[in-house]
Amino acid sequence: MTIQETSTALRKKTVSSVELLNESLGRIAALDSKLKAFITVSVETAQIQAQQADRDLADGKDHGPLHGVPVAVKDVFCTQGVLTTCGSKLFADYVPGHDSAVVERLRAAGAVIVGKTNMHELAYGVTSTNPHFGTVRNPWSLDRIAGGSSGGSGSAVAAGMVPMAMGSDTGGSIRIPAAYCGAVGLKPSFGRVSRHGVLPLDFSLDHMGPLTRCVRDAALTLNALAGFDPRDPTSSRRPVTPYLPSEPVAIQALRIGLPENFYFERVSPSVATAVRKAAQLAEEAGAVLVPVRLPDVTELNTIGRIILLAEASATMEPYLDRRGDFGADVLALLDQGRLLPATDYVNAQRVRRMLLREFHAVWKQADCLLTPTTPTAAPRIGQSTINLDGEEDVRLASTRLVRGINVLGWPALSLPCGFDEEGLPVGLQILAPAFQEALILRVGAALEDALGLAERHPAL
Amino acid sequence: MTIQETSTALRKKTVSSVELLNESLGRIAALDSKLKAFITVSVETAQIQAQQADRDLADGKDHGPLHGVPVAVKDVFCTQGVLTTCGSKLFADYVPGHDSAVVERLRAAGAVIVGKTNMHELAYGVTSTNPHFGTVRNPWSLDRIAGGSSGGSGSAVAAGMVPMAMGSDTGGSIRIPAAYCGAVGLKPSFGRVSRHGVLPLDFSLDHMGPLTRCVRDAALTLNALAGFDPRDPTSSRRPVTPYLPSEPVAIQALRIGLPENFYFERVSPSVATAVRKAAQLAEEAGAVLVPVRLPDVTELNTIGRIILLAEASATMEPYLDRRGDFGADVLALLDQGRLLPATDYVNAQRVRRMLLREFHAVWKQADCLLTPTTPTAAPRIGQSTINLDGEEDVRLASTRLVRGINVLGWPALSLPCGFDEEGLPVGLQILAPAFQEALILRVGAALEDALGLAERHPAL
Repeated sequence: MTIQETSTALRKKTVSSVELLNESLGRIAALDSKLKAFITVSVETAQIQAQQADRDLADGKDHGPLHGVPVAVKDVFCTQGVLTTCGSKLFADYVPGHDSAVVERLRAAGAVIVGKTNMHELAYGVTSTNPHFGTVRNPWSLDRIAGGSSGGSGSAVAAGMVPMAMGSDTGGSIRIPAAYCGAVGLKPSFGRVSRHGVLPLDFSLDHMGPLTRCVRDAALTLNALAGFDPRDPTSSRRPVTPYLPSEPVAIQALRIGLPENFYFERVSPSVATAVRKAAQLAEEAGAVLVPVRLPDVTELNTIGRIILLAEASATMEPYLDRRGDFGADVLALLDQGRLLPATDYVNAQRVRRMLLREFHAVWKQADCLLTPTTPTAAPRIGQSTINLDGEEDVRLASTRLVRGINVLGWPALSLPCGFDEEGLPVGLQILAPAFQEALILRVGAALEDALGLAERHPAL
Repeated sequence: MTIQETSTALRKKTVSSVELLNESLGRIAALDSKLKAFITVSVETAQIQAQQADRDLADGKDHGPLHGVPVAVKDVFCTQGVLTTCGSKLFADYVPGHDSAVVERLRAAGAVIVGKTNMHELAYGVTSTNPHFGTVRNPWSLDRIAGGSSGGSGSAVAAGMVPMAMGSDTGGSIRIPAAYCGAVGLKPSFGRVSRHGVLPLDFSLDHMGPLTRCVRDAALTLNALAGFDPRDPTSSRRPVTPYLPSEPVAIQALRIGLPENFYFERVSPSVATAVRKAAQLAEEAGAVLVPVRLPDVTELNTIGRIILLAEASATMEPYLDRRGDFGADVLALLDQGRLLPATDYVNAQRVRRMLLREFHAVWKQADCLLTPTTPTAAPRIGQSTINLDGEEDVRLASTRLVRGINVLGWPALSLPCGFDEEGLPVGLQILAPAFQEALILRVGAALEDALGLAERHPAL
């Protein structure tokens, strides 16, 4: 069930929040030994919240669409009294004394927090093959990765354990698992959702956002999360323009840009076909397709990698003598970051400013952009390269179409747009200028309706 | 003459702008072979401007207090069609095609730009012993440094060549020459004066401001310069509150903080005595003296040095293979910056944010702070250390009380407050919260009146 369906059922009293929670816990109990989507399931605190949600609703205290809905949050979000590991051995026993801003807002909206999802160690990777908490598996094919770093959130949502799970996205970590697991993933604009109380990976690239079963659920969640927070120094004071769902969604005359360079190059034929088919549906719904060319996306990705390497190693510096506490891949990245000269970092931030201006020019030609989210569907667990006109590291391939957007701070939405020849889900990405979340959600909802894939679920 | 006096004389028609310019040019011709305060004197363009200023005034077009006044700008400010060297061999032949924002605003205010002042090479040092354009000398004693990096601006103003010369301040480069030369130096808040068209040393520490003969002239100049500029990404949109001189200046009940730690430690007795005497005059004028303690200023200075080393080397990286084009001291700093790891820079910026909060707490106790500007009066040319309870590098000693303020972005004013036993001027520094320039100018004007030093000029 989606948040919207759950919400309606709760208000019709055909189901209670406690029943919804029990259903969610039952599904986790049945599936999680295989999927490893959760690090912690907080049965008792969730039950108390669900009971409270039922009482509040009975008393006429309705906190909105998330009220009484079981949700999960990635294990980077601090939860008061509940283990918060960041997928790392370093924080294996860390029980915070406070909630992150996102968790505060979810609680205020009446959501029931079922547990903390598994992830790539320290959110620093895309496979979610976590050496400490197990390898997250893809509900569509258990030998495939769920993507990462928010792999547990993608797997939990796709497997129907919860209708929404929060993720964090530094270089694609919400959108990649959304694409690989056939879920919807929303990375809001930089500054739109507070990062207070989140274990940081990268100050200037981290973004927080939801993974859901449908676009409208992502919108409902964003409405509950967005807004200024004085405790996050990068939080924006720009007023929030909530996304308001309409039926049917109108996208007539909207200029949808298709970036022919970079985004449709070195992409598997089934991915390209599925995304182009979605674009065609948009055109049939009245949108205008505009072929566009972008400045150098490879440069943008390089800048993103330099900034991430430096900032992640700076954040983790106090722990770097505990070498045995890190997985080999994460340690290698942290070591690389320590070898980076300060001048490279400073110059990367300078180039970033110039690229921001250059990329912004695309909005003269188009209102939003439509691209694949990843060049292929989910790779196999253990697979180290992807072959598309030559071998490419799985991590580089998975982040190639998403990482640069974190450098720009634009909002980005990934949603399922079809299946490849092996029956694995394919994701498309919608991009818009900063703070135009409402626009990408509108286009996403229209495409979701046109694609009619909502009823396709993995057989588990 | 001060700007105020010049301005009055021009309007009374007792003098013309052309006459003022000729007087200024005459003084430069007479003294500059000794002082080396100028790199370029632009006689012809200045004459055209002065003639225009006279015509405008005759036609009733009055551009305000700077109208028709001869001024100079440090050779970091781009001037259309006029050599802009940055005190460096690299730019020895650079003639920009555009004016910097500061020069634009000065021209719009009717100022006559006489020339470009000498400086420490690339603004990266405090002695202004420039290997390419000569050593700037201190008008009070020719064997003393003028301070730096805006040494030529300090020397030119103190020697009466111009009533105002613009400087730039990354770690004290306006206030140090002001203190050593017995001039007034104003470093505005970060973001208050546009940096567009200035050859950058450090993106996050550079500030632009005037050196003048009196506090009110600094205020008049700031009024002409302050304000948002979309071409400078760090420019503030905060509205400008102009400084309005009053006679007499009231500072009753103002809480003036004296930071007993750091700022009165390891300072020469004559400097401490002169600054304390000024504080006493403030008390007699009705202000309340409050002893305060600051968080670790040494840490603030360290952060400032790390950020400067990294950003300066990043800026100069394209030129670093031309080793022979740099002075030995500047090359050594640029080499140091290249060896700095990115993690140190990132962590320095993180600590900066924390220190900003900690230092801000002092404003609960005091409205402004009064400190010495430098621990001693001007050192001798060639002197490498200062002995105050142990030897200290001249560069570290000269910047010890000023560098940290650039890290915080607070506005700072230096003005003469007396003379040491050798007859060399001593500077005091007034600090206030960000964007409270009007407050430090008010306190500065009151102290200047009370000190009555305005008539003391170097014998040249």
